[in-house]
Amino acid sequence: MAVNFPLICPEQLYPVAGVTLGWAKANIRKPNRKDLLVLALDEGATVSAVFTTNRFCAAPVIVSREHLAHVRSGGMGVRALVVNTGNANAGTGEEGLAHAHEVCSRLAQLAGVTAQQVLPFSTGVILEPLPVERLSAALPAAWATRAPAQWFDAAEAIMTTDTRAKAASRRVVIGTEQITLTGISKGAGMIRPNMATMLSFIATDAGFTQPVLDSLTKHAADRSFNCITVDGDTSTNDSFVIIATGQADLPLITSMEDPAYIVLRDAITELAQTLAQLIVRDAEGATKFITLQVEGGATLAECRQIAYAIGHSPLVKTAFFASDPNLGRILCAIGYAEIANLEVNQIDLYLDDVWVVKEGGRHPSYLEEEGQRVMQKPEITVRVVLKRGHAKAVIWTSDLSHEYVSINADYRS
Amino acid sequence: MAVNFPLICPEQLYPVAGVTLGWAKANIRKPNRKDLLVLALDEGATVSAVFTTNRFCAAPVIVSREHLAHVRSGGMGVRALVVNTGNANAGTGEEGLAHAHEVCSRLAQLAGVTAQQVLPFSTGVILEPLPVERLSAALPAAWATRAPAQWFDAAEAIMTTDTRAKAASRRVVIGTEQITLTGISKGAGMIRPNMATMLSFIATDAGFTQPVLDSLTKHAADRSFNCITVDGDTSTNDSFVIIATGQADLPLITSMEDPAYIVLRDAITELAQTLAQLIVRDAEGATKFITLQVEGGATLAECRQIAYAIGHSPLVKTAFFASDPNLGRILCAIGYAEIANLEVNQIDLYLDDVWVVKEGGRHPSYLEEEGQRVMQKPEITVRVVLKRGHAKAVIWTSDLSHEYVSINADYRS
Repeated sequence: MAVNFPLICPEQLYPVAGVTLGWAKANIRKPNRKDLLVLALDEGATVSAVFTTNRFCAAPVIVSREHLAHVRSGGMGVRALVVNTGNANAGTGEEGLAHAHEVCSRLAQLAGVTAQQVLPFSTGVILEPLPVERLSAALPAAWATRAPAQWFDAAEAIMTTDTRAKAASRRVVIGTEQITLTGISKGAGMIRPNMATMLSFIATDAGFTQPVLDSLTKHAADRSFNCITVDGDTSTNDSFVIIATGQADLPLITSMEDPAYIVLRDAITELAQTLAQLIVRDAEGATKFITLQVEGGATLAECRQIAYAIGHSPLVKTAFFASDPNLGRILCAIGYAEIANLEVNQIDLYLDDVWVVKEGGRHPSYLEEEGQRVMQKPEITVRVVLKRGHAKAVIWTSDLSHEYVSINADYRS
Repeated sequence: MAVNFPLICPEQLYPVAGVTLGWAKANIRKPNRKDLLVLALDEGATVSAVFTTNRFCAAPVIVSREHLAHVRSGGMGVRALVVNTGNANAGTGEEGLAHAHEVCSRLAQLAGVTAQQVLPFSTGVILEPLPVERLSAALPAAWATRAPAQWFDAAEAIMTTDTRAKAASRRVVIGTEQITLTGISKGAGMIRPNMATMLSFIATDAGFTQPVLDSLTKHAADRSFNCITVDGDTSTNDSFVIIATGQADLPLITSMEDPAYIVLRDAITELAQTLAQLIVRDAEGATKFITLQVEGGATLAECRQIAYAIGHSPLVKTAFFASDPNLGRILCAIGYAEIANLEVNQIDLYLDDVWVVKEGGRHPSYLEEEGQRVMQKPEITVRVVLKRGHAKAVIWTSDLSHEYVSINADYRS
């Protein structure tokens, strides 16, 4: 049911110098599917990440944070990432932490590095013990298949309820040097990232110092994965990682004033937006891709609060599924978004090019047929104009269909 | 699909001295259904109400607030209420206000009172003009059918997507006097009351001064309609009204210290809880009635915040629909409830009598079969123990089923 999901050719995913990828079938939850991914990084790569704000964050999130902190405090750089699907290793307590550390140690042995140079990631069912023996047993096979041109396989290896592999690649020329950016993402449900999405990894052969890459990572996350929602459920495992190998023939970027920084920041942000939007296009049961734009707000925060109130309303989402211009439901969601002193009599609402609500009431010349025409489209923009200031927020979301219920009522079976 | 919905016999709904009810078929949205209700109050009744906090509140909510404020500032008391279904008269701007005033004037003429002694209520589709002529034309018929023993008909006359009429009655003996309490409610979707529910009216023949009745109304609302959620959508029209006719042979209650106040406050609160729970039992598409109890919190607010995070999670709600003990989804919702410094390693979770999570991880002796056994029941209690303090909150909610999607994708058609 994916909505306008682009055809992704494995050949169009450019390898990134300094990164190889390998995968295996580890039988973590179901037999005979790619469920284990390893990424190996050449020495000298810089890695930055943002993680879920869920307090019940998964064991691999805790361990990845620890290992990145170790690098920041002068430890040796990250050399490998390992990702499993089928089990989130969340809600698993001390045993879960021990399992995550065990996975890092086993991969470190294969890679000839320390366990602290490995970052672990997991996605899948919560509250069940990680089958660490099956996972570890498959690591040598995954490690042995490493190659630079396997980004599409990597995207497939991290899928859970995703129906499509999510990946994209860009090339940017800076001076005379061509810089490559390639990324993958996964996620379809339990999507309301708060600092990051379920899982996304972007690599580039440009080089950045750690603080500059950290800034870039936050910049990109705030404008991409932090702007999507499927069901409002912020996952326990959300992680967004940027790897900068520095193998391109470009000077190390040490400052946010560097013109190359601006170019790459914007290119990586655009790539992250594409990867984030692919998640919404493949959202569980989605039949519509909805852009929610709230403008004229006093603050960015209030624009986002209103956009999320609309984006999370089951009534708004089912109306989109039905292609029913039952647009009072959008007004209702704006009204309960808990914005202090919101003057509803100033608010305008547009559905694509159709002016539906003028100053808080139905526009006198609004015709139901016009609303109906837009609602039948697979991609729709809702624009709310608050007239309180100059802030603006955009988020992307999907509708709520029978299939969402089916998928989530059946996911574990 | 209502869950353990009790059989309600019209004969068990006791008339309340001083209140008569009448209804009509006004063809407001659909032909040949009861869609108009009037309540007439004898002189001397005291009326208190709480309304939605939605900023896009409906025109009748604005007008009812004005008229109640007029009474409080010394105006003559409320003598009639009028309720229509099929159209919410919300998102209708100045025209909507004029329509609500017009309805009050027309009923006031019939009743021989002033328009300010009439409170209007509406429920139904938002953003469409109220068919005020059809409504007004049916008022004489509704007024003419008034009788004291028509509470069940009244409950039917305010239904929208409700599949069952919701009403309950109680009798309390104070001294030698029998006091009657009878109430009705409506609502099945767009339910996450914030000060009140869609619509509920309770009448008693006890008498209270205005400030005492106001306190009682807030007390009852906070423990009943403010503790339920179906889909998290706070309606534009929520209204909860208590009418005290003072016709019983009991002294006027002028103080919250009066022992009769305590008895009646608790009886009315219990009645309001029953009416609120009937809404959840008849929630759109509901197959389960879920009690969410969060205890050991530092504050009531944080307990409620966690309970609502669980109660609004589409993933938790679909797991209940599937009878699937996918309980990691509950931990996930607790984790993203945005509670500062929440120590997840202290948290215990019970499903009815089954101890599922101990100190943040799966309880070592928890068996999936035990979780499965509970999940198959139509009524389930989820108990979360935070161990941060002594506060406790309980809310009631329903699951998310295919039928919820069907109902809300079809509601206007």
